[in-house]
Amino acid sequence: MKETDALIIGGSAAGVTAAITARRHYPPISITLVRRERQAVVPCGIPYLFGTLGSCDKNLMSDEPLKRNQIDLLVDEVMGIDCAAKTATTAGGEVIRWRRLILATGSRPIMPPIPGVELQGVYTVEKDVDYLGRMLEAVARAQDIVVVGGGLIGLELADELRKRGLNVTVVEVLRRCLELVYDDDITERAEQELARLGINVKTSARAAAIEGDGKVKAVRLDTGEHLRADLVLLSIGAQPNVALAESAGLCLVDSGIQVDRYLRTSNPDVFAAGDCVAKTNYLTGMPSTTKLASVATAEARVAGANLFELRRQFPGVVGVYSTKIGDLAMGLAGLGERAASAAGLSYIVGTAEAADRHPASMPGAKSLKVKLVFTRQSGQLIGGQAYGGDSVGELINLIAVMVQRRMTTEDIATFQMGTHPALTASPVTYQLPTAAEMALAALR
Amino acid sequence: MKETDALIIGGSAAGVTAAITARRHYPPISITLVRRERQAVVPCGIPYLFGTLGSCDKNLMSDEPLKRNQIDLLVDEVMGIDCAAKTATTAGGEVIRWRRLILATGSRPIMPPIPGVELQGVYTVEKDVDYLGRMLEAVARAQDIVVVGGGLIGLELADELRKRGLNVTVVEVLRRCLELVYDDDITERAEQELARLGINVKTSARAAAIEGDGKVKAVRLDTGEHLRADLVLLSIGAQPNVALAESAGLCLVDSGIQVDRYLRTSNPDVFAAGDCVAKTNYLTGMPSTTKLASVATAEARVAGANLFELRRQFPGVVGVYSTKIGDLAMGLAGLGERAASAAGLSYIVGTAEAADRHPASMPGAKSLKVKLVFTRQSGQLIGGQAYGGDSVGELINLIAVMVQRRMTTEDIATFQMGTHPALTASPVTYQLPTAAEMALAALR
Repeated sequence: MKETDALIIGGSAAGVTAAITARRHYPPISITLVRRERQAVVPCGIPYLFGTLGSCDKNLMSDEPLKRNQIDLLVDEVMGIDCAAKTATTAGGEVIRWRRLILATGSRPIMPPIPGVELQGVYTVEKDVDYLGRMLEAVARAQDIVVVGGGLIGLELADELRKRGLNVTVVEVLRRCLELVYDDDITERAEQELARLGINVKTSARAAAIEGDGKVKAVRLDTGEHLRADLVLLSIGAQPNVALAESAGLCLVDSGIQVDRYLRTSNPDVFAAGDCVAKTNYLTGMPSTTKLASVATAEARVAGANLFELRRQFPGVVGVYSTKIGDLAMGLAGLGERAASAAGLSYIVGTAEAADRHPASMPGAKSLKVKLVFTRQSGQLIGGQAYGGDSVGELINLIAVMVQRRMTTEDIATFQMGTHPALTASPVTYQLPTAAEMALAALR
Repeated sequence: MKETDALIIGGSAAGVTAAITARRHYPPISITLVRRERQAVVPCGIPYLFGTLGSCDKNLMSDEPLKRNQIDLLVDEVMGIDCAAKTATTAGGEVIRWRRLILATGSRPIMPPIPGVELQGVYTVEKDVDYLGRMLEAVARAQDIVVVGGGLIGLELADELRKRGLNVTVVEVLRRCLELVYDDDITERAEQELARLGINVKTSARAAAIEGDGKVKAVRLDTGEHLRADLVLLSIGAQPNVALAESAGLCLVDSGIQVDRYLRTSNPDVFAAGDCVAKTNYLTGMPSTTKLASVATAEARVAGANLFELRRQFPGVVGVYSTKIGDLAMGLAGLGERAASAAGLSYIVGTAEAADRHPASMPGAKSLKVKLVFTRQSGQLIGGQAYGGDSVGELINLIAVMVQRRMTTEDIATFQMGTHPALTASPVTYQLPTAAEMALAALR
């Protein structure tokens, strides 16, 4: 029997980050990470291997950080956990005794309940290098691709596939693509960009059936329309992998593993982090179905630090969603207007638009638009959105930290930032203080 | 006699922002802005008109925001202020009666006390469109240019001039270029970049004299070396324009206009903002000679809001310095190690380096290195540095807000950010929580 102080099940973003964090916080302990995959893929990079990267090899997580942090890696599958005996049993026949356990078992794609998903040429987005390799080969032979699901991953896939010159159609059941993520100001702009890129978009349309004869030939929509397809990618979301936790008798809630603020499961020696965990929203306390690698790692930094002594709390999911489609980078942190409305909050907004370089004649300058959402009563920032050039990637993180520090309209209106002609808006037009002033003005 | 509720003297970043802020906070008042210059130049853009932009026309501040905010613009020079009578008299013979006054008179280049500065072909960095036009003509005829002063503006100028294919030498009296701004980790990297770009750098060298016969021919260094030059640009810093304030009997301190936290001068109806104002550091309370357009506008947002009712405080200068030389973007917010040492603070640092996209095989990925500086006792963030690709521009603002919200090692280690393959580091390697963890580890 193998013995380890800390056993981590799962080798994607949460598992690896939990292991490294545990090493930093508890230098002398033994740490073992068990993962099923021979090689771990970078989860967020998956869409990019179909275009920009061009191969699975370029999208692998290196095992070097595990080695450097003296984390024993076992490629195997844990089949059962005994919380009383504190053991885990693997498919390979190993029995591992642990003192603390972290479940980072992640999520798997949701398969839509429609006819034809079993046809050859129908794929989901699996975080598995062999599966992705086969999918890449299929893409290389494809001409007409239908992506079912116009969320972040669906659109990123579509954008990468059109870079290969393929005929790509996105089918989205909601009124607009990205509607679950962003407010209408961004979703409208994103659909303009999709049109500019030549990506076909069918919104308010449901894939009713995938048709074919052994191999996929078309997607039939509930509108009656048929879309020719030699490849169908299903990207309608993910569900937590909780079978292991469930069979071990740990409590589940909202279809995820139940945890407390310290990320302990119902067994205080068993922690959980990442997509497998049930979550609540930082701002509303309401259940959250957010599945983001960035949230997974934030949880992992709490779970890993708490293994042998409770050092940190996870306050709930802020939720920072950034992406880039074509030339348009987009981001949201916290609550957009739609989410604020849905939560019943009384809010005000302030917006600002300016070039992301200055003067605006600087080469490469793009218009960058920011919207901030504040509670009406207390003027507390509860969320923000931005779209424009690549600086959105860190600008939305700036907004995220402002949300987490519960900054107010006044705090942001007087926030001291730096500016540079080649890197940001001008100090006069910088979007954050301006948006805060506009929100203040809306109250007057 | 002209009458105005608010008179603003100065039309650069501080003056314009103060005027717009005053309009937002006091919709019905009359606001007059007096500036000397027919057309206002974008101050931070000046280096770029010598290369990237290529003409002064592309670096002008539009007067449109003044019009849109119903701010009367008077192109004239205020020659005297009478604080008792509440009037200002201009060179053009106008007498303007005001209820509140904002001085935004800015700064002017420091002229080094060396022989030869009067020679033809010697220029400073004046925020004056006509002067800059003449300077641009001189650059067009030049071949060998010596830039005296290896600070931000000196290096930005040097980088733009080399883009024109000119032979550029930077003379810096300190041990390294940018030493007053950044710690050695950045200054070393910046000097590598200067070398790569083919810019000659003479550090630990003082320009002893500018030599020539009517027209500049060379710069003699205190090391004895002669540098051939048909153009010399002096960029050794700026001093506040306080003559008007002084003649009006307002108190000066540290060679700037003395203000309180509300940015009132010694006369409570007279405010001041921008480079003309004496400053203290946000973190240490010590005098600060920072002159940045971003600080000027932050002060202006306070002064403009306080005109008729004290609504905001300015807590002192955080100081966010960002620039880009060649392909290297750099930034510092708050105190670097050198400044923390000089202030006598006991501090710890944490550093992290990772690609600014993920996986690192994403095209355009660059290494982005972050250093955070925390107080040893309380673990409070007092500053940070970053260098790498263009995302540094907003990342350093993210660090700036963390400084302003007095976040700790723990706060940053558990900070929730967003990540995206095309825009940021990976969620596992994202530099800010990692750097915070490394600082925590340094304490254990």
